[in-house]
Amino acid sequence: MGEVFRTRRLVEFSDTDMAGIAHFSAFFRWMEAAEHEFLRSLGYSIFDKAAEGHAVSFPRVNATCDYRSPAHCVDTLDIEVTVARLGSKSVTYAFHFLRGDQAIADGKMTSVCCKMTAGEPPQPTPIPGDMAESLRPFVVA
Amino acid sequence: MGEVFRTRRLVEFSDTDMAGIAHFSAFFRWMEAAEHEFLRSLGYSIFDKAAEGHAVSFPRVNATCDYRSPAHCVDTLDIEVTVARLGSKSVTYAFHFLRGDQAIADGKMTSVCCKMTAGEPPQPTPIPGDMAESLRPFVVA
Amino acid sequence: MGEVFRTRRLVEFSDTDMAGIAHFSAFFRWMEAAEHEFLRSLGYSIFDKAAEGHAVSFPRVNATCDYRSPAHCVDTLDIEVTVARLGSKSVTYAFHFLRGDQAIADGKMTSVCCKMTAGEPPQPTPIPGDMAESLRPFVVA
Amino acid sequence: MGEVFRTRRLVEFSDTDMAGIAHFSAFFRWMEAAEHEFLRSLGYSIFDKAAEGHAVSFPRVNATCDYRSPAHCVDTLDIEVTVARLGSKSVTYAFHFLRGDQAIADGKMTSVCCKMTAGEPPQPTPIPGDMAESLRPFVVA
Repeated sequence: MGEVFRTRRLVEFSDTDMAGIAHFSAFFRWMEAAEHEFLRSLGYSIFDKAAEGHAVSFPRVNATCDYRSPAHCVDTLDIEVTVARLGSKSVTYAFHFLRGDQAIADGKMTSVCCKMTAGEPPQPTPIPGDMAESLRPFVVA
Repeated sequence: MGEVFRTRRLVEFSDTDMAGIAHFSAFFRWMEAAEHEFLRSLGYSIFDKAAEGHAVSFPRVNATCDYRSPAHCVDTLDIEVTVARLGSKSVTYAFHFLRGDQAIADGKMTSVCCKMTAGEPPQPTPIPGDMAESLRPFVVA
Repeated sequence: MGEVFRTRRLVEFSDTDMAGIAHFSAFFRWMEAAEHEFLRSLGYSIFDKAAEGHAVSFPRVNATCDYRSPAHCVDTLDIEVTVARLGSKSVTYAFHFLRGDQAIADGKMTSVCCKMTAGEPPQPTPIPGDMAESLRPFVVA
Repeated sequence: MGEVFRTRRLVEFSDTDMAGIAHFSAFFRWMEAAEHEFLRSLGYSIFDKAAEGHAVSFPRVNATCDYRSPAHCVDTLDIEVTVARLGSKSVTYAFHFLRGDQAIADGKMTSVCCKMTAGEPPQPTPIPGDMAESLRPFVVA
């Protein structure tokens, strides 16, 4: 049974739209913030350095979200973060949004580990070993 | 061969992030704006009335995006909108983002036609017949 | 010497722009979130009811911000909220953003207390007495 | 009588909030987009080069907006851009938002011309002469 990183998010007035609920695009910002908080909890920053001294970053190649029930202003959402798939060069995070025990949304984001060199396109590269080891306990069984 | 609705979008400074490119969440706002422009081009507003007098709306149940290549500030993106699937109560739009002939991103959004009654949860209902007929030519073959 | 309501805000990746700093418009979302948290701390919700049973709300008539020094991703900003002016029908909040002891920005927002009736324009009305009393200790001397 | 730069903006669904109107922070994004379109119309890009080869940019030091009447989804707003003040090192733009002949909002933004050197804070510098000449006809009399 894999580990789960948990965080929370307050739905703010500026997240809402004229339908009176959180705008669907807000969930993507919340997923990214939860991803970054998860990585910080593991000791990694957003723009991290690989052991060999090159900058590595994780441009995302896919983001998706299934909406189960609307979120309203001032709701506090619980967010559970796990790793749906850990590849050699990419990682797919899964996000489960809950209000109490009611499912609100389920999202995923896939990022590819890339070597970043100024003036060149990002070049896919293996996830640094220590980072992969830190993520492995969160892989969904 | 299905019809295609085409529109364009300027990438603005406020759409960018510190990686120097359009933030991935911006594509979801752009998809929604393109969907609404498409519906207006067919004669429908966002909150439309079914023939029988009840308000119908289209809460979305899924949104997804594959990112092919980054979009930069002041890029003008071409957006092609088609209908990936037209169900009896739901519609899935497909969005193809291009800069010139370079693919930038491909997204989809699925919305469910719902009867909206104040104080009750949205209730799925068949897409009004004239609207379904308007959408049908855009269904991808 | 007036009281000060204090809160904090993490600058997130999605708040940044291609200049590598928090986008200037983010401060306005942060001011609103701080205002709402301040009001909740006093026992008021965003959309509150006046004693006599009419809904009152506080549409804003002005928002302004002076930028002192840029805020960066993952900065934690301290926000001090005070009341710059408490009129009979309006309130002006002042927001002081700090990172450590460095001034980042100073903003103000003025809202007018309005009676909200469906289908009519907001009608300015006196701030309910208990709410004015709750705000008074935070008025800047 | 000064010249006026005119542009338009569609209020989109994602610009709205649960009060059913455009969120007040949207006007700041719209001002910036109008400023950039104005500068492009004069032949300048956002990040421009001074004659002597140093990069110059225009970090903003103040932004303010007075709200006259709410903007609603699918409104097309006319935006009039003028120069409220042209200093030797700073420029203050004025923005007048209208829907038909109804005033919606009036905003201002002040930017300081700065020499940008990597790793150093922005250093205020005179606005390049040709750019000042391009802006001068738009100064409000």
